[in-house]
Formats: sequence, C-alpha cells, structure tokens
Amino acid sequence: MSVTAGQVIKCKAAVAWEAGKPLAIEEVEVAPPQKMEVRLKILFTSVCHTDVYFWEAKTQDCIFPRILGHEGAGIVESVGEGVTELAPGDHVLPVFTGECRECVHCKSEESNLCSLLRIDLNRAVMINDGKTRFSINGKPIYHFVGTSTFSEYTVVHAGCVAKINPLAPLDKVCVLSCGISTGLGATLNVAKPKKGSSVAIFGLGSVGLGAAEGARLSGASRIIGVDLNPSRFEQAKKFGVTEFVNPKDYIKPVQEVIAEMTGGGVDRSVECTGNVDAMISAFECVHDGWGVAVIVGLAHKDAVFKTHPINFLNERTIKGTFFGNYKPLSDLPLVVEMYMNKELELEKFITHQVSFAEINKAFDLMVKSEGLRCIIRME
Amino acid sequence: MSVTAGQVIKCKAAVAWEAGKPLAIEEVEVAPPQKMEVRLKILFTSVCHTDVYFWEAKTQDCIFPRILGHEGAGIVESVGEGVTELAPGDHVLPVFTGECRECVHCKSEESNLCSLLRIDLNRAVMINDGKTRFSINGKPIYHFVGTSTFSEYTVVHAGCVAKINPLAPLDKVCVLSCGISTGLGATLNVAKPKKGSSVAIFGLGSVGLGAAEGARLSGASRIIGVDLNPSRFEQAKKFGVTEFVNPKDYIKPVQEVIAEMTGGGVDRSVECTGNVDAMISAFECVHDGWGVAVIVGLAHKDAVFKTHPINFLNERTIKGTFFGNYKPLSDLPLVVEMYMNKELELEKFITHQVSFAEINKAFDLMVKSEGLRCIIRME
Repeated sequence: MSVTAGQVIKCKAAVAWEAGKPLAIEEVEVAPPQKMEVRLKILFTSVCHTDVYFWEAKTQDCIFPRILGHEGAGIVESVGEGVTELAPGDHVLPVFTGECRECVHCKSEESNLCSLLRIDLNRAVMINDGKTRFSINGKPIYHFVGTSTFSEYTVVHAGCVAKINPLAPLDKVCVLSCGISTGLGATLNVAKPKKGSSVAIFGLGSVGLGAAEGARLSGASRIIGVDLNPSRFEQAKKFGVTEFVNPKDYIKPVQEVIAEMTGGGVDRSVECTGNVDAMISAFECVHDGWGVAVIVGLAHKDAVFKTHPINFLNERTIKGTFFGNYKPLSDLPLVVEMYMNKELELEKFITHQVSFAEINKAFDLMVKSEGLRCIIRME
Repeated sequence: MSVTAGQVIKCKAAVAWEAGKPLAIEEVEVAPPQKMEVRLKILFTSVCHTDVYFWEAKTQDCIFPRILGHEGAGIVESVGEGVTELAPGDHVLPVFTGECRECVHCKSEESNLCSLLRIDLNRAVMINDGKTRFSINGKPIYHFVGTSTFSEYTVVHAGCVAKINPLAPLDKVCVLSCGISTGLGATLNVAKPKKGSSVAIFGLGSVGLGAAEGARLSGASRIIGVDLNPSRFEQAKKFGVTEFVNPKDYIKPVQEVIAEMTGGGVDRSVECTGNVDAMISAFECVHDGWGVAVIVGLAHKDAVFKTHPINFLNERTIKGTFFGNYKPLSDLPLVVEMYMNKELELEKFITHQVSFAEINKAFDLMVKSEGLRCIIRME
C-alpha cells in the first residue's frame, strides 16, 4: 500500500487551457481512484497527432481546460474498489480504449471495440461518476480519452490499463499505447501478408511505419511506401520500405502506378493517412483475386468512400481496424514481449526526447511533422 | 472413340437471331473440337438471368446470332488435341469461367479468376482460333460465355469443363454450373458464418437462395431474407430463411431495421441483387467489430458504391466473390458430391421443366420472375 493511497495527490500536469495556446505546467490535485479505477504515476509519455488535433481544435469544439496525452507508461500508485487484476507497483501502459472482458465485443475473438470502454473522444470525465479526478483549486480539469498522460499522476479505468513485463524499459514501450501498435496490428492481425508478398503502405508517419514494421516482420518481399512527402522515404528504409511512390510524380492515379509496378496490384495495402482519396487508392491498388486493403486512418466526418462495385466482385477485400485489432489488456503485453525478444524494433521510432518542462517542444515537432516520436521524461 | 469424333455434327440448337425475339430451334453444324477443346452432348440445361440479359440486350450492344445458355450438364462426345483430363463418355458440367491450372490466379489458393479463361461476356468465339464452332449453311453462329448450352452439342474449352461423378443425375446437378453455386459458395467459402450466427441475404432469387442454403448448412441460427417482393418469403422458408424484411415496409434504411432486429447488426450479409443501394445496405447492416458483407451481384456499369469510412474503421469487412470462389474444375465436382451426400438440397431450386422445343417458355418464366430454375430436357 502506497502512503499516498486514498489521498489527493498534488503534482505537476501540462494543462491545455484553450485551443492552440501552449500547454502550461500547473500544480493539479489528483483525486484517489474510485470503483474500477487505478491511479498511475506516469514516467514517460509521447505526443501523437490526436493530442495535437484536440489541442488545436480547428475543426470542432473541444473541451477545455483539459489534460491531454494518451501514449504513456507508468506504475500503479493505488487501485480503487473492485480492481483485482492490478496492484500498486505494477508496470503498465494506459490505453485510450479498453477491455471490460464482459461485453459482446470482449467475448468475441475478433473484436476489440469494447462496448463499455471503447474510445470516446467527447467524454472528458470518468464513467463511474461522470466527474473529473483532476482539479486546480476546486475547479475541474478535464480528462482526455480516459488517459490524460501529460500529468505526473493520472486516474484511468482499470479496463484501460495493460499490465506489462516489469523488465520492459518504459521510456521505449510507452510508444506502444497508440499509433505504432495501431499500424503494426493492422498488418499483423488484419492484413496478414504472407511471406514473400507485396504490401503498399499509404502514409509514412509513425502509424504507417508501424504497419511497415509489421510487413517486415511478416517477411514481405516488397514494401511500397506511398507518401506526398519524399523526404520520408530515407527514414522509411529503416522500417523495411523497399520502394517509394509519390502520387504527385504521376498524372495517372497512384493505384494504376502500383498495379503496373506489381503486375496487377499488391497483395495487401494498409492505409494510414485518414485521407479518403488515399483509402480509395489503397483499395483499388490491391490485386484482384486475393488482394486485401486495410483502413487505419480516421477520415473527416464528411468524407465519402466511393468505388465501382466491380472492384469488389473481382475478389478484392476492404476492411478497417481500430488499434490494430489488439485487445488492450490481453494483447498489448504480448506486443511488449515482441520488443523484449528483439523481434520488434522500437528505438527507430523514437527520434526526440524532452523533459516534461519542454512539452511544448514536443508539440512543435508534431505540428511541423519533424521526426516520429518524441519521448517526454516526466521526472 | 465416338463415331462422330472429328466430324461435323448436325444437331438442333436454339438460336437467338436478334434482341428480344423468341429463340428459334434450328439445325446447326457443330465443328469438331480444336486444341484444348471438348465437344459435349448437352442433356439438360437451365436458364439464368444472364441469358435473358444478353438476349434482351436492352442496355448494351449484344452479338447476334448467338447460342445462349450456360447452366448445363452433359457427356463428352470427343476431345481435341492436348486434352488429357477428359475423355469421351465423361459426365461433365460446362462452366462460363475456367481454370487453366497455370496462371497466377489458378496457382493462388484464394482466387478463381483464371487469367486465361475467366468470364468474358463480350467474347463470342473460341480462343484457339478466334472463330466459332457453330454455323448454319456456312454462316457463323456465335458462342456465349464459352458454353452455349442451348444446343444438343456444343464446343467448350477443356479448362471450362468440370468432370463430375457419373452417378450424379444430370437433370439435377446441371443447375450447379452458375447461380446456385455462386450463392452457395459466397456463404460457404467467403462469408463463412459460424454456427449459431446471424446472416442477412439480400435478394431471394436462385443466387440468394443458394446463399441461404449455404447459411443453413453452416448452422446459422437466424437467416434474414431481404427482398422487395414479399411473395418470395414463403418459398424462402424452405431454404432456411427464418425472418423476412421488405425495405418498402419501412421509412428508415433497411440497414437500421436489421441493426435493431439483431442488437447492432448481423454477423454476415450476402448481397445477391446487383443493386448498388442493396450493396451499401448489406455492408452497413453488419455488426461492428466482426461483421463481413459479401457482394455477389453484378452492378450496373455506372453504379457507385458509397459509404462513410468510419464503417470500415469500426471493423467491418466487405469483399466480393465471383462464382462463389469455386475453382470450376477443382471444386465443382465436390459441390456435386455435397448433393450426392444429401447435404445440399437441389430439388427445391427446380420449380419447372420443359422440353427443348419449349425453351421460350423457360425464358418467359425468367422474365416474369416465376419460380426459380426451369430445367430444359434436350432429348
């Protein structure tokens, strides 16, 4: 039992007070965990596009003041009533989606879209009482996707906390809580390329490079990276990308370019941009007879996917995935083991490191699309 | 060796001289089979929508004069040079698509879209010499999808002829050459519903009822038939359809109706209408997390499939199939065995029978959507 268990903890957190304004490191009060909740001491966190999207709040109303952050790693400080699978001292990854182990999705072998704990971008409070666990002088500070890892301490639903190997270096595996696992799982769990096959990856950011890493691990012989930014190709080679296509270099649609390069189309494609035109290209570039396209990116709410039905009839498949089809509690510890066994290489995703005080630098890097992941050291 | 081998055979054939005009029973000359071709004596054939579509020729230019027909069963009369897998006397099903056993598709476990012999609706001649094997007084009569079963004798590429169990009754298994296998395979080979699952079938014609038969064989506990024609429900019950939805009975989209009936969507759907709105509904009515929609119908050439990408991201899959993913030579004999083993029930698909002289009655039935399959006795 930690000495702070059951007490309010005062600690530092990076608070987003309003849209687009630099985060402010503030002293916040973190209430004890309630029923089925866990309070975590965050040691490392990183910044993902989704944090920036909800901080910029350019295209939708967002909730402020809020503590962002959803790629993190830490240690359990205390647990609330009913929590049996976690104990103080456990090394964990908090996750923006969850696994209640009781709903139809959790009971399905195929789905990770837990009915109780699946991501809710609009929820800013804990589900137990509809209130926040963060406050400053009694004023509530809101949560973000149930994780809020930009705080030295945070409260998370126990169903969103994956217990991992305590030997795993938290400054590395913290990046597995979101984008990299999303891309990796999209390839390994959903696209499932065979050894020697060809895979096209649309978008060579962290998610796309996670997908490329999955293709490399699967033994794909051709990994074709597609991106509008040619400077990304050099970096992508480290992730096994063998060829690069910039759609801007061609007049014809990129799906036709890829079909010509591959004698009719790739065996698999993974779309990691969220752009609906890239989704259509990713679908139409797979080989007839067996090609499978996997959609990972989150499209604009008004986007419409369009294709001619003959593309289906010619035995092409399109499917989507959320968080790489990983069930967070059951599967994420196994992804950590892939890193521990030196199958999965995480170091190459980590291009920057800053202290917690410098968190706005990490946001600047993401806004400028510089590098891949920037680790923020909380201590 | 048959006495007619190597000779031109004079026999009766139903010739479509022009669009929409009744077929005329004519004496035609059928040339001997050339390299990799087989001449068949057709004993039974049935009429499928595609025959009517290319006879009516309402929406596209079609080739005339032509011998239609592609659901048939017969016996090999003679074989051309290079044919080793078939011999005179073999009981066979000619098929509108083929299996060369050498191309990338034939070598793939997943595809049946043979590069050499896949369906070509515009080809009206044999591929060996680009000419017809049918003529009347020296004037060529054109082929249809490589089968032209509305003739007492026809010439077919050997890669489009499935050798079957000689004990199988040809007046029953002739219906397996097209629609019924297409629907059956769409469920058994592509949708693959688990025992106890829910399946929606869009379109309750022969293809849709073939799909329903597949769902019944898979042990689906709920088979929801969707059709604009309520009179089809009574018949569909024989095929295991447990519930019926007529989209016209609702203001809300049928995908919402099905989602409400099933607590979020069906596990699988099979679209057998060719209507693009039905395709969209079939996709959007499957459950998030694991739902799979299978597209079977051939849409209008200008049709556009549209959906919001979030429907993919919520872990739904859509895939198409051609001829139920059956490889005609390798797999069709096994479907015949399913009938011989009394797993698959074919009798209920056969609602009418006529003599060859009455073939236009079979066309009338199809035009009026009366019954399912009408068997035409050639002798």
